[in-house]
Amino acid sequence: MQDDGVPFDDRGLAYGDGVFETVLVRDGRPLLWDAHVARLRRGCERLGIPCPEHDLPAALPGRAGSGLAVLKLIVTRGSGGRGYLPPVEPQPRYRWRVTPFAPRETAWREGVTIRLCDLRLARQPALAGIKHLNRLENVMARREWDDPAIAEGVLLDTEGHVVETTSMNLFWHRAGRWETPALDACGVAGTLREGLRERLPIAVVTAGVDALMQADSLWVGNSVQGLWPVRRLLDARGVERQAWPVPSTSARILQDAAHELLGYPRLTD
Amino acid sequence: MQDDGVPFDDRGLAYGDGVFETVLVRDGRPLLWDAHVARLRRGCERLGIPCPEHDLPAALPGRAGSGLAVLKLIVTRGSGGRGYLPPVEPQPRYRWRVTPFAPRETAWREGVTIRLCDLRLARQPALAGIKHLNRLENVMARREWDDPAIAEGVLLDTEGHVVETTSMNLFWHRAGRWETPALDACGVAGTLREGLRERLPIAVVTAGVDALMQADSLWVGNSVQGLWPVRRLLDARGVERQAWPVPSTSARILQDAAHELLGYPRLTD
Repeated sequence: MQDDGVPFDDRGLAYGDGVFETVLVRDGRPLLWDAHVARLRRGCERLGIPCPEHDLPAALPGRAGSGLAVLKLIVTRGSGGRGYLPPVEPQPRYRWRVTPFAPRETAWREGVTIRLCDLRLARQPALAGIKHLNRLENVMARREWDDPAIAEGVLLDTEGHVVETTSMNLFWHRAGRWETPALDACGVAGTLREGLRERLPIAVVTAGVDALMQADSLWVGNSVQGLWPVRRLLDARGVERQAWPVPSTSARILQDAAHELLGYPRLTD
Repeated sequence: MQDDGVPFDDRGLAYGDGVFETVLVRDGRPLLWDAHVARLRRGCERLGIPCPEHDLPAALPGRAGSGLAVLKLIVTRGSGGRGYLPPVEPQPRYRWRVTPFAPRETAWREGVTIRLCDLRLARQPALAGIKHLNRLENVMARREWDDPAIAEGVLLDTEGHVVETTSMNLFWHRAGRWETPALDACGVAGTLREGLRERLPIAVVTAGVDALMQADSLWVGNSVQGLWPVRRLLDARGVERQAWPVPSTSARILQDAAHELLGYPRLTD
């Protein structure tokens, strides 16, 4: 357990047959833990991987020490023979690692530049929403640029709907309400997104890039980094498609809620 | 190397960031080896994984012993930090294992029963054709049945086109010609399929399930098992949709070619 590797015949390696979570840990305490556990279980259930109640609490990073860290937890279906058919009684394999972490505080305040990716996400409802180990689309999309000044890449699906960014969910304020893309055909339902939806009215919408252009403010975030305002949206060739000012205090309501969930500072103080 | 496992931070485990091959080995000699190496390289190139010329010949199973075996070879992008962005200079990791193998000889002669899967393959041209490690769709499809009398499951894509079966390619004879599905939106381009296309005229078609119903004979095959005639096609609820007799000698021309490529017996003798 913990940060051992996996053997050759592990199905997580062979087929990406498993799920993972990336969890912010503060002074040994995992943030949004219930939401992470719930998504992990939902993923295991979808894939038919047994996920015994008693296994997960044991994975808590009790000795992560003080300060901020990130827990990465991987659950695979365990070892298997050749072929896609899972073993009748799979023995899931749990692996995790805790590494120190420092958030990008400047990005909270000043915002980031993001770009549109060329790669389109395939629509696969059977795997949508869960955080499974088949992440080549994200890898391929992230390989499209190497300019460190560009923080994230926006992913559309093959029908042109905005879905997420390479490693974050999208949120925007438009026509007086908060919106976030539907994730029923592809994308990962972030735990921060879940937490925010429980606290604020956020409409789940099916929308194209136009929605981003029309937004008063655009945000990207996840449960590790918190919420970043987007200042510039570039296309895949680097041409600016839209720009936004530093958000006003009143526009930071969603960020305040996100940072409360993660123990990060309110930027409106 | 060889059949060691991989460490926690291997990107093959983390994201399915790699490719694999499954190769029939006879008396220590890999069959269709050039085609396997070509596909592996094509996959690495697509994913941007360096695949040095000198690494692969070293992976040959020189001491596999006599008789039949299967070589499974995995190439991952190697270790990486947290996040989808690949390392600037990835150090790919090669792993392989050789296991004894016995083909299903009865299936060559008498044929098999297959079924239509409920799961539809997502259309992702960026990953189509190559044998990457993101195989959850195959796993999910293969989990749909556990009746050992059903050999394979037919996979359609989300637009209703026939693509492949859970672990084989499809071939059929219809209106006087051989056909196999196009694999430009999803599916794996099998090395046996490549080998057969070099030897016989096989039309690459975009077709629905109707094409299977209209076939004089339907076949499934890969570079490990050879080519099996399909005798019964069931729907996902187990109801027979079509049945075919044992193929006549003249209908076995494709199987003869496949078995010559793999050193398996001609069934027409």
